[in-house]
Amino acid sequence: MINKLISEVDLKNAHDRIGPHLHRTPVLKSAQLNAISESEVFFKCENFQKTGSFKARGATNALLQLKESAAAKGVVTHSSGNHGQALAWAAQNLGLPCDVIMPENAPLVKVAAVKGYGAQVHFCKPNLAAREEGLAEIQNKKGSTFIPPYDHPHIIAGQASAAMELLEEVPDLDLIMAPVGGGGLLAGTALASHYFAPRAAVVAGEPAGADDAFRSFYSGERVSSHQPNTLADGLLTTLGEHNFPIIQDLVQGIICVEDPEIIDAMKLIYQRLKIVIEPSCAVPFAALLQQKERFKNRRIGIILSGGNVDLAKLPF
Amino acid sequence: MINKLISEVDLKNAHDRIGPHLHRTPVLKSAQLNAISESEVFFKCENFQKTGSFKARGATNALLQLKESAAAKGVVTHSSGNHGQALAWAAQNLGLPCDVIMPENAPLVKVAAVKGYGAQVHFCKPNLAAREEGLAEIQNKKGSTFIPPYDHPHIIAGQASAAMELLEEVPDLDLIMAPVGGGGLLAGTALASHYFAPRAAVVAGEPAGADDAFRSFYSGERVSSHQPNTLADGLLTTLGEHNFPIIQDLVQGIICVEDPEIIDAMKLIYQRLKIVIEPSCAVPFAALLQQKERFKNRRIGIILSGGNVDLAKLPF
Repeated sequence: MINKLISEVDLKNAHDRIGPHLHRTPVLKSAQLNAISESEVFFKCENFQKTGSFKARGATNALLQLKESAAAKGVVTHSSGNHGQALAWAAQNLGLPCDVIMPENAPLVKVAAVKGYGAQVHFCKPNLAAREEGLAEIQNKKGSTFIPPYDHPHIIAGQASAAMELLEEVPDLDLIMAPVGGGGLLAGTALASHYFAPRAAVVAGEPAGADDAFRSFYSGERVSSHQPNTLADGLLTTLGEHNFPIIQDLVQGIICVEDPEIIDAMKLIYQRLKIVIEPSCAVPFAALLQQKERFKNRRIGIILSGGNVDLAKLPF
Repeated sequence: MINKLISEVDLKNAHDRIGPHLHRTPVLKSAQLNAISESEVFFKCENFQKTGSFKARGATNALLQLKESAAAKGVVTHSSGNHGQALAWAAQNLGLPCDVIMPENAPLVKVAAVKGYGAQVHFCKPNLAAREEGLAEIQNKKGSTFIPPYDHPHIIAGQASAAMELLEEVPDLDLIMAPVGGGGLLAGTALASHYFAPRAAVVAGEPAGADDAFRSFYSGERVSSHQPNTLADGLLTTLGEHNFPIIQDLVQGIICVEDPEIIDAMKLIYQRLKIVIEPSCAVPFAALLQQKERFKNRRIGIILSGGNVDLAKLPF
């Protein structure tokens, strides 16, 4: 089933397609973080990616597969976070019109970033119905194509390229870890491991305050709405329909971490790797630290998802 | 005169000697920082160096040139900052005993870092006389060799390797910028440019609240004591005796920046490069921003000196 939805060739093509537009982000290591985690950890730094997160990968892959007639009419999404910035940038980079529906209480800095990449911003009430209404309005008016943040094979295939690059650089990993929100990055990572490093297990980290993927994974039934409460504000969404079956088939486990664990992991990454990440990005490393006995002495790849954080609100 | 003190061969030998022990740090770029500075900037990231600063270069070079009999007796320095950590690490790495004299009011985190690298810490009153007394005591007792933080040809030659690596990666720079405190990094950078990129100018940034190098440079007489007042706590020292003549001969200018300019530059680097740096490290970029009209459209290398910052005390 997996092979029919997103094949090995789909992943390779996606990577080839988006490569010229994106950064090949570095893989960092730290002797001190290895000592603390009692394993050997390779951090794939998507905080250095265009627009500051891996989301630029999926957005670019989706746009490059639009038919010319659709592309000319432009694209639209709703987002208060990294996907909005990524889509705005990818559209500007490819010369396509872009509209982004944002909740009226979105942080000004995020609104400014989306506008800075040349997209037109439309404000709506901060609820899903208002977002979807705003989206439908633009689609009707302009004939724009909706580019979803995670629930689409083109998005998933694009996000897979981060793990593919990590595996090219460090082929013999025992384990690959990623955060899970909507599941675009996690499903892509699981597919990349399945095709290119079948020996490596894939385990996700999820905030305990937004544990819908955990509950979906272990119950076998996708939780489609929840009331998240966590500082990891990039992981508030619920698991997508396309994402869930891939994760069920190819992921070995999901570990929940509390906010204080996320803050500790985040601080260690600032102090030891000397890089700026957002709270969501620290979740898989927090999961590793929580269960370090279980993963002791393994070679572990961690996808660091992004670095778009309000510096005035660092949690330490 | 310069050639007699530290030759081109000295620099090459230093780089070859220390290379196997150190990180070859990355050179980062940002389209957005280029747009803001109206030039093309290449950041050499010594915040990713062993111990979190370029100081590991000079310390390693100095230790590798000790005679065996001296090395066996160990090394000693006084430091409340990056040099203490760097020397402790370099000594541990090479299997030498190391003592560090630290002021009794040194931040606990810095004391812990020095101890973490296996050095023996001795506390003294927080003044120069007490530091020197502590130093003399260890030297008398153990026969240790004093490794100064900046005022020595071996230290200067080691620090030069950061700019040498930058020039290997980006040979056609118009300008190289570095911060100046005691002048180890600046003198090394100026020598590297002199020998390996004579077309490139070298300009330093200095905090206005610790402007002894600026005053020394433009008056022609070395200011040997001052009362610094700046948040850039890695640049409080006065220019060294060996460092000053090299800087006089080979540096084209020193630009003073106020603390708010340092904070602005530091914040931009966190936001756009997504890396953690200490305030002192932001000084040359602050200097570039202050005088961006003067350097417009140039290709500029900036040595980012270090990333050892107390995250609880970030100035933004």
